[in-house]
Amino acid sequence: MHRMIDSLFMAELGNEILRQKKDSAILKFGSKKLAFTTDSYVVNPIFFPGGDIGNLSVYGTVNDLSVCGARPLHLSLGIIIEEGLDRKILERIVRSIKNAAKSARVKIVTGDTKVVERGLCDRIFINTSGIGELYYDKLSIDKIEPGDSIIISGSIGEHAISVLSKREALEFGTKVRSDLAPLNGLIQKVLKGPKCGVRFMRDPTRGGLATTLNEIVSGRRFGIALDEKDVPVTSGVRQACEMLGFDPLYLACEGRVALVVSKRDAARVLDIIRKTALGRTAKIIGRVTEDHRGRVSLNTVAGGRRIVDMLSGEQLPRIC
Amino acid sequence: MHRMIDSLFMAELGNEILRQKKDSAILKFGSKKLAFTTDSYVVNPIFFPGGDIGNLSVYGTVNDLSVCGARPLHLSLGIIIEEGLDRKILERIVRSIKNAAKSARVKIVTGDTKVVERGLCDRIFINTSGIGELYYDKLSIDKIEPGDSIIISGSIGEHAISVLSKREALEFGTKVRSDLAPLNGLIQKVLKGPKCGVRFMRDPTRGGLATTLNEIVSGRRFGIALDEKDVPVTSGVRQACEMLGFDPLYLACEGRVALVVSKRDAARVLDIIRKTALGRTAKIIGRVTEDHRGRVSLNTVAGGRRIVDMLSGEQLPRIC
Repeated sequence: MHRMIDSLFMAELGNEILRQKKDSAILKFGSKKLAFTTDSYVVNPIFFPGGDIGNLSVYGTVNDLSVCGARPLHLSLGIIIEEGLDRKILERIVRSIKNAAKSARVKIVTGDTKVVERGLCDRIFINTSGIGELYYDKLSIDKIEPGDSIIISGSIGEHAISVLSKREALEFGTKVRSDLAPLNGLIQKVLKGPKCGVRFMRDPTRGGLATTLNEIVSGRRFGIALDEKDVPVTSGVRQACEMLGFDPLYLACEGRVALVVSKRDAARVLDIIRKTALGRTAKIIGRVTEDHRGRVSLNTVAGGRRIVDMLSGEQLPRIC
Repeated sequence: MHRMIDSLFMAELGNEILRQKKDSAILKFGSKKLAFTTDSYVVNPIFFPGGDIGNLSVYGTVNDLSVCGARPLHLSLGIIIEEGLDRKILERIVRSIKNAAKSARVKIVTGDTKVVERGLCDRIFINTSGIGELYYDKLSIDKIEPGDSIIISGSIGEHAISVLSKREALEFGTKVRSDLAPLNGLIQKVLKGPKCGVRFMRDPTRGGLATTLNEIVSGRRFGIALDEKDVPVTSGVRQACEMLGFDPLYLACEGRVALVVSKRDAARVLDIIRKTALGRTAKIIGRVTEDHRGRVSLNTVAGGRRIVDMLSGEQLPRIC
């Protein structure tokens, strides 16, 4: 259904900006460039280990601005609430939004609340839109070249497993906490200086790292090869994936960024990331290849090689 | 519930911009000023005489930018859809969004779609956020003075009656069509020139003209006196109000603007408005007074005078 809707919207509303399908629209405004993005959050459950719908709705939008090279500044907050929602729940969410905005150094500057009848909305849905100022405008898929390195800023899949395990009341050996976090600080450190070597970056949310990398290679004259042994996955996520039959490559993160960096600069960029609190487990996990054009491939631990496709079925629902 | 939520959000998230409680936040961006606003639309039914949730979600946000003296430029579109929603319905809504954006001369530049399970969202909810460029920065409640005139750009209450009559399958003598329309063209004509005489303006949506004017006088050293005989109400709205026991002053409009204009300029501004397609029935409906501070009063057709309070009960739900 998702893809049907996306294609319908793109066909009817598509303009040169929307068609770029970036995480944020980049717009000229006066003498500067502005990034503008929106996301609705319908995560279920609304509280999960490591976060809740409140800080998710702040960090998610902060990250969409950050990966475009923008400094997040202002957020809007549009809330739809089911009539009769417990005031205590609402207070917890509002406080979480407040703390998240503070820690990501953004301001909520405009808002709207709608109440709908009991049973016609699942407790609370939140939309945030964000405005940022572009401070680094050299990020582009067009700059990617064979030989470039792929870096992930940390272990993958914790967000999805955290939400799923809470939703389904599943217990694994260790409790998995969401990786939810604001990436603007980490990314600003990486993008310091015009010769930082970063070609492009994206946060692997819906559909996980596999989907994000597939979107990067789609229709391009290069491929991406990953080394499975280097992709950081915690033991908790690994256990959960084995139990549930998931591939961690398709699981959403909410506090990770995947970067394409020139080979020359990769070790230096990795070092910068590893020195940040969020990036201690960052790894170089693969490279841009001339072969397998338009495809993502995985060199498996077992020594084989397989194609990592776009997810053929429906993605996990209501993870964000 | 609405007021409880608003006060909770303001208490926790309030900053100097949010506390201004304008229809849009006004933000410095480089050498220019930017207006930023958000609204979620949960109107029920999603199609009503004169409009639908699609063009409502475009024009509503365009108008929130326009009444702040901003030229609407870019819109975001965040859609939450109930699983299984008929594709034909979705297509109608998307086309309506497309046409509305075209007629209001704004671009949809970024979007997001979420699908939730059947029964957990009432068909479709739409959030739009909007960015505009401030071209007139002299609008302020602080500039209002006793003697100023109150202008309404057209007859009131058609939007609310149109939605209600469709929702409740009510029939009145004449079919009432929503007044839904983009106000940016009309407002730009009025705000031409720094000496246009307009002090402040707002579009009387939720809670109608009475609520909008009460928000203007609240805590101020002036009041507003309306002349009931001059407030334009169509016969269809009047009939519906008599049947349902509503006061048209509290009914939402989606294509009207209420302006406070210096007495000297009122006739000239009225003339400009009346020459626009949307403003043919515009009227001067009252004035700013020194007495009845902080209050809106109404000189009734019967010759009496009564206070027009803020609505004490709940406003009509899901009108926008």
